[in-house]
Amino acid sequence: MGMTDLIQKKRDGGALSREEIRWMIEGYTKGDIPDYQMSAMAMAIYFQGMDMEETYELTMAMLDSGDKIDLSSISGVKADKHSTGGVGDKTSLVLCPMVAACGVKMAKLSGRGLGHTGGTIDKLESFPGFSTSMAEDAFLRKVDRVGFAIAGQTAELCPADKKLYALRDVTATVASMPLIVSSILCKKLAAGADVIVLDVKCGSGAFMQTEEDAFGLAKALTEVGRRAGKKVVAVVTDMDEPLGSAVGNALEVKEALAALRGEYKGDLMELCLTLGSQILTGGGAAENDAQARTMLENAVASGAALERFAAFVRAQGGDAAAVYDPSLLPQAPVTLPVPAPEGGWVKRIHAEGVGLVSMGLGGGRAFKEDTIDLSVGVVIAKKVGDQVAPGESLGTIHARTEEDARRAAQRLLACYEIGPERVTRAPFIKGVVR
Amino acid sequence: MGMTDLIQKKRDGGALSREEIRWMIEGYTKGDIPDYQMSAMAMAIYFQGMDMEETYELTMAMLDSGDKIDLSSISGVKADKHSTGGVGDKTSLVLCPMVAACGVKMAKLSGRGLGHTGGTIDKLESFPGFSTSMAEDAFLRKVDRVGFAIAGQTAELCPADKKLYALRDVTATVASMPLIVSSILCKKLAAGADVIVLDVKCGSGAFMQTEEDAFGLAKALTEVGRRAGKKVVAVVTDMDEPLGSAVGNALEVKEALAALRGEYKGDLMELCLTLGSQILTGGGAAENDAQARTMLENAVASGAALERFAAFVRAQGGDAAAVYDPSLLPQAPVTLPVPAPEGGWVKRIHAEGVGLVSMGLGGGRAFKEDTIDLSVGVVIAKKVGDQVAPGESLGTIHARTEEDARRAAQRLLACYEIGPERVTRAPFIKGVVR
Repeated sequence: MGMTDLIQKKRDGGALSREEIRWMIEGYTKGDIPDYQMSAMAMAIYFQGMDMEETYELTMAMLDSGDKIDLSSISGVKADKHSTGGVGDKTSLVLCPMVAACGVKMAKLSGRGLGHTGGTIDKLESFPGFSTSMAEDAFLRKVDRVGFAIAGQTAELCPADKKLYALRDVTATVASMPLIVSSILCKKLAAGADVIVLDVKCGSGAFMQTEEDAFGLAKALTEVGRRAGKKVVAVVTDMDEPLGSAVGNALEVKEALAALRGEYKGDLMELCLTLGSQILTGGGAAENDAQARTMLENAVASGAALERFAAFVRAQGGDAAAVYDPSLLPQAPVTLPVPAPEGGWVKRIHAEGVGLVSMGLGGGRAFKEDTIDLSVGVVIAKKVGDQVAPGESLGTIHARTEEDARRAAQRLLACYEIGPERVTRAPFIKGVVR
Repeated sequence: MGMTDLIQKKRDGGALSREEIRWMIEGYTKGDIPDYQMSAMAMAIYFQGMDMEETYELTMAMLDSGDKIDLSSISGVKADKHSTGGVGDKTSLVLCPMVAACGVKMAKLSGRGLGHTGGTIDKLESFPGFSTSMAEDAFLRKVDRVGFAIAGQTAELCPADKKLYALRDVTATVASMPLIVSSILCKKLAAGADVIVLDVKCGSGAFMQTEEDAFGLAKALTEVGRRAGKKVVAVVTDMDEPLGSAVGNALEVKEALAALRGEYKGDLMELCLTLGSQILTGGGAAENDAQARTMLENAVASGAALERFAAFVRAQGGDAAAVYDPSLLPQAPVTLPVPAPEGGWVKRIHAEGVGLVSMGLGGGRAFKEDTIDLSVGVVIAKKVGDQVAPGESLGTIHARTEEDARRAAQRLLACYEIGPERVTRAPFIKGVVR
């Protein structure tokens, strides 16, 4: 067996066997198979695809390339959640405490990430002293005691995926269904949860631009997850506009706290209730969706979810005062409302564009070494379908300087498309694939 | 402009511009663009192809990546010939002296090559003292004086192609039409001839397995050649059996000498007359094909072509005695005829298989460092369409030991398919594309 033969087999539309896939991934991880052969293989997979069996074997081979987290010391059901990424996505900050308050535990591994805002870890550093560096056993004990914890990744999970993803990124082979599925699932399987919910974003700014592609990805994820012996549910959601209102690190924390106080009823809470009820029913904590939703709504209404969030911040060394007084969170010196130049209805908001506004303000990271400003960002006031009067604010820029703010305001305006006719919003939750 | 963007553009079916192709090839040659991006690009080209304009630009960019041979010091018309490779291909040894005897000069660069037999250079080392190492000016003077010369490549022609070909070889991206066209033509353009004839092999053992593919390649080669301002003619030929009878280094030289003496009238001579008449008409040395063929046949009949070959061997330091007495060529100690187990007509001869018989006897080279035995090989006695009686010889093995010979005889038998019905041979020359 040689790598050239395997590339040719895939190039000609053949299916790779379990042995071939394992040999390839092991060899690539060890460095025996060079990048230039793997990138040719990735491009061949891009064009010829992989069937469900191959995708499953690729996932398992990447899973077995590194460490696995053992959650057995945590009592009860353990859940995990993954999102294919979106602008203004602060779901984990709201979902984890809601679910934990209902008795299902979540051990989340997170990264700093590159992009329009920092990752979940950056956002949480809005609380002074908060840290995600901890030994694995300390992490597991915190999850067991508080109900959830978020740690930076220390164990070497799926090194094959790490290496392959970096290669795909520079060889135009990211957008391949079997490569996406295996990359997402191998890491979730290594993280050890029993129930895994996946938020598959769909729309112009997402990996999957059409509903058909998004549902295809959702089906493949659940199917491969089932073959791996896990309960995997995928929720397909719209991301043709930012999720919620805030885009920017501390601003998103503030919005998450508002949601946990029950002061927020938009798409963000709808998503958390949908994902959360899949976790509760999947994990046996609720009998059906209706019961699960009621439990989650009660966790918010009673203040139990907010309490759980405060306990989490304290358990990870943070000052939880800002949980109850959000004015203590990092605040940008300059705020500037962005008035609508004309009246009408909001037809579209270019989500990717709003992300770039936040990034331009200093809230995101283009390179690993970049430092980010937690206070800056955008809070949009009008979402798709909203009516707006001439001069009414579309949103507010939070910036370091007046000049930054003015530039960002121009950019934000360019993200809005406003028309004279009433607009009906498409449903935010497009479907659930189990 | 980044390489990832270019890969994506080609992946999505876009056409690369002249600037993009030049930037890519220059960067790849210098090492600024890594192999892993180039191999993903090659695979994207494999699937999406390149139009004529792109193929031309790729050819010219690879041509400009290195040195070019200047043939202007040689008087008259200069021609070159290339073959896409075949088992038993000793065409250059016959064609060059025939053409030179008719007044058109050929400056051939050749290599040692890997494969079933050595390259042209290895074959010519059957003449004691023969050498292809010489300075470029000495090479040009020899061509001008003798009419043709064959040199090992010293100048760095098309380093981009050298690097890309090595990469394609290990990433299953050899069989891509635009990559084949640009790889063949850039080297021929760098070698500086005015008239270029190309022998495009077609059949189970060739790059192009179907006639359709072979004619497609022939058309692309002539079209790109014309854009580059050269007279390029492609001849599509059958290679479902070895060319001529001999496969093995000295054995092929012996067959070439027989052809030059006019003692051979099979497919090999037919090919030399076809390629040669394209050279003579293309170079203006003959008015039409009929006249050109007569000139070439006269060059053989008069002994002028054989004289020219002897002069060539002497000019390159070789002992030309064997030109007139082939029994002086290296001879294997053991010869073994291979009798047909049954009578009938030869339906097929597996060309690739016959090549492997020669290689197994020590006549070929798997790695650059391997030494080869010039004396060993196979001379087939029966070609496709020939009738054979039970026990009649299908061919003769030339080997170092009895044991080698017996093993090779078994293998040669396995290459033959003999049936009870009369077989009509398909025409050997499938067509000429100008």
